[in-house]
Amino acid sequence: MLNITAAYTDLYQLTMAQVYFKTKPDGTAIFDYYFRRIPFKGGYAIFTGLKNVLEILENLEFSDSDIAYLETHNFEPSFLEYLKKFRFQGSVYSSMEGDVVFPNRPILQVEANIIEAQIVETLLLNLLNFQTLVATKASRIRHSAFNNILLDMGLRRAHATGGYYATRAAFIGGFDSTSNVKAAEDFDIPCSGTMAHSFIQSYGDELEAFRDFARIRPINCVLLVDTYNTLKSGLPNAITVAHEMESRGDRLFGVRLDSGDLAYLAKKTRQLLNDANLEYVKIVASNQLDEYVINSLKEQGAPIDVYGVGTELVTGKPDASLDGVYKLSEYNGDPRIKLSENILKISLPSKKQVFRMLDENGMFYGADAIALASEGAINKMMHPFDRTKNLDLTRFQHEPLLKKVMESGKRLLPIQSTAEIAEYSKSRLTLLPPEYKRFQNPHIYKVGLSPNLKEERDKLIDAHKF
Amino acid sequence: MLNITAAYTDLYQLTMAQVYFKTKPDGTAIFDYYFRRIPFKGGYAIFTGLKNVLEILENLEFSDSDIAYLETHNFEPSFLEYLKKFRFQGSVYSSMEGDVVFPNRPILQVEANIIEAQIVETLLLNLLNFQTLVATKASRIRHSAFNNILLDMGLRRAHATGGYYATRAAFIGGFDSTSNVKAAEDFDIPCSGTMAHSFIQSYGDELEAFRDFARIRPINCVLLVDTYNTLKSGLPNAITVAHEMESRGDRLFGVRLDSGDLAYLAKKTRQLLNDANLEYVKIVASNQLDEYVINSLKEQGAPIDVYGVGTELVTGKPDASLDGVYKLSEYNGDPRIKLSENILKISLPSKKQVFRMLDENGMFYGADAIALASEGAINKMMHPFDRTKNLDLTRFQHEPLLKKVMESGKRLLPIQSTAEIAEYSKSRLTLLPPEYKRFQNPHIYKVGLSPNLKEERDKLIDAHKF
Repeated sequence: MLNITAAYTDLYQLTMAQVYFKTKPDGTAIFDYYFRRIPFKGGYAIFTGLKNVLEILENLEFSDSDIAYLETHNFEPSFLEYLKKFRFQGSVYSSMEGDVVFPNRPILQVEANIIEAQIVETLLLNLLNFQTLVATKASRIRHSAFNNILLDMGLRRAHATGGYYATRAAFIGGFDSTSNVKAAEDFDIPCSGTMAHSFIQSYGDELEAFRDFARIRPINCVLLVDTYNTLKSGLPNAITVAHEMESRGDRLFGVRLDSGDLAYLAKKTRQLLNDANLEYVKIVASNQLDEYVINSLKEQGAPIDVYGVGTELVTGKPDASLDGVYKLSEYNGDPRIKLSENILKISLPSKKQVFRMLDENGMFYGADAIALASEGAINKMMHPFDRTKNLDLTRFQHEPLLKKVMESGKRLLPIQSTAEIAEYSKSRLTLLPPEYKRFQNPHIYKVGLSPNLKEERDKLIDAHKF
Repeated sequence: MLNITAAYTDLYQLTMAQVYFKTKPDGTAIFDYYFRRIPFKGGYAIFTGLKNVLEILENLEFSDSDIAYLETHNFEPSFLEYLKKFRFQGSVYSSMEGDVVFPNRPILQVEANIIEAQIVETLLLNLLNFQTLVATKASRIRHSAFNNILLDMGLRRAHATGGYYATRAAFIGGFDSTSNVKAAEDFDIPCSGTMAHSFIQSYGDELEAFRDFARIRPINCVLLVDTYNTLKSGLPNAITVAHEMESRGDRLFGVRLDSGDLAYLAKKTRQLLNDANLEYVKIVASNQLDEYVINSLKEQGAPIDVYGVGTELVTGKPDASLDGVYKLSEYNGDPRIKLSENILKISLPSKKQVFRMLDENGMFYGADAIALASEGAINKMMHPFDRTKNLDLTRFQHEPLLKKVMESGKRLLPIQSTAEIAEYSKSRLTLLPPEYKRFQNPHIYKVGLSPNLKEERDKLIDAHKF
């Protein structure tokens, strides 16, 4: 079984590390983590995965079997000795987990010995990219579902053990509970579930299956009504059992629709339940749901109370990945840049701070300004490439977003529960105006540079121009 | 960190299990694992993940902390006592890992106490769906790349620790090596890598960076040439270093293109390398590659020797999931069925065997016939729903595909290395005619039912009809 050790990396990190080890073992580097494109054609993303990353960094080392394995890969003995003692001893500056974030600004910066900073790159990208993707998807689904209950049930379609982290990210992004027992246990997330078709099939007789289930698991009991025929069999049987439960002082929590036309079936179901004086029985729906299907169900007035979402959530469809990168921005105090034929892919040099602009009501105005970390207050931000565009910042409150969360390899942040992170995320999202949250052509949140940072970047571009 | 225990499941498995425990603790169930739709609009899939599943099943139990957690979820003490002693003691019948498989036929069958069979469902689906998806994607990329070298470098964009299994599946599907050190170590897969832009950026001077790297890591040395300008800087510097290596008796393995128009740059690069008498230096290309991009590069005559593939491979884009399901087909010896308004979703009852038809040359004819396990030879197969279609099977060799791979919770299969599984997969794929492998409208492989199985299924459909 997988144990995340320092060998959870790409081989080239170690190849490069050996060269650093032989030529400049004491170099200090700053790397920026950021992404370039908001997933799902949306207007924002939810930064997720920080706590896991810091926890792993604090304890990261190569196991004995990692070292034995690397001995077979042409590494020098002195470098292998170094790896045996390897610990991450750097500093990390980061946005808070759960915050609303935007492209092309550092979300996290690592400041460390270049060997250490390089070895942890893969791990950081792997955990942050995926969880940020899923939390962002979850946030969109939450947006479409308003106050309805959202249940993550995707483990069976998740990317193997990636599903464990998907559940965590889904909760931070706004889901209420999960079917994933292990993740619920480890991350302290509410756990819930209904029943499967196999349960009813094993009885053959649907009514009997419902009766046994309701008798033995009366709390939060949800009956799955589409094994044979939703309206002609499942629902009449569920109504019978609901009345039997009432006679015992219990209450059926809900019925679950898992196939067919959910809008039509939900309306028919609500009517049949109400006709049977079961107004309190909730309707749970599942089957390839995402934010667009839920939107459509809402538009049609489908009286659904609980949505179970699986595949689309835990795989972050249709994008399935976030394009987060980790770029060197400073080496031994000197600013560094990566050019590209694509102007949008040119990196930003130097250690930086990001300020979020808040309006007079404390709401996000819609602009993050990236400055050199050495700058104090800034009063103007420039468009990264369009010389004609800039924004006066003097009328805003400036919230610094990057905080030191790890120093000398030790966490500085108080350990938060998953629920606390989710709560923080919700509070931040509340500050984002609605035009950034809509699905169709959301408003574009501005990310700009301080005049000093822009000047430094442009100088480096010129120095490397051909 | 995640430890896969029996709590790696959906809560409803345990809820149902408690009801089984109270009402029919000795029931025996057969469940079928199969998928309904071939991913990527392709003509076949590569079944992967079996070894991991069997290894986990053999050692599966609830940890003490799992039990403590479940105590807070309204489970009865007697059932929790049962869970403490839980072990999977069932049998598993399966296609061999790496085999070419098709939709709507059992790929794996579990025969076990119904509680055990139910609890392991999520785990099986989670590991088999994802690895089969990625191995299938890898197989398609292999098809497009012919005999070129294929390198998996997707860990940073993989779904967190799911990337560990993605690497394994990619290798079984036809990749040559991976950048993922941990997966390479644990699954015994060749590991390789190049260098990152950060390495060159840390030097500032590209030529000096190349020199140090080539001197310290001369074996399989690949220089990344696009940090500043591929043709005007990276390549001339790489050529200088290649000649310096020659003077020391070393040889540059390759240069890597990671941006820009790969077809154009590869041609220019080949020409410049050849003009410098460096015909042996290989061209490695990466940047958002998939089977279609590689196809197109081939069509344009791009002289690329090695393809590095990341995101599209490890996330199984654009599908990002395989729709594999696990359906009850028999309970205590009685056949069971799940109906659906969608005729294609109706399940197949009873314990079954699947026969693959081989032609006179031992090639796959293009038909798998599903029969009752109790049947001996079958001489005809029927289309699942179209009464007008059937196929005479008397002229074929019949290869039984489901083998008993686990009995009483113990593995029966000899333990194979990942390389052996990959080799088997390749040998099986060789037997599949090319018309099933093409990307555009591949030929549809027939999956049919024995007359007896069809009769049994239809009887059950009639019995449950409304």
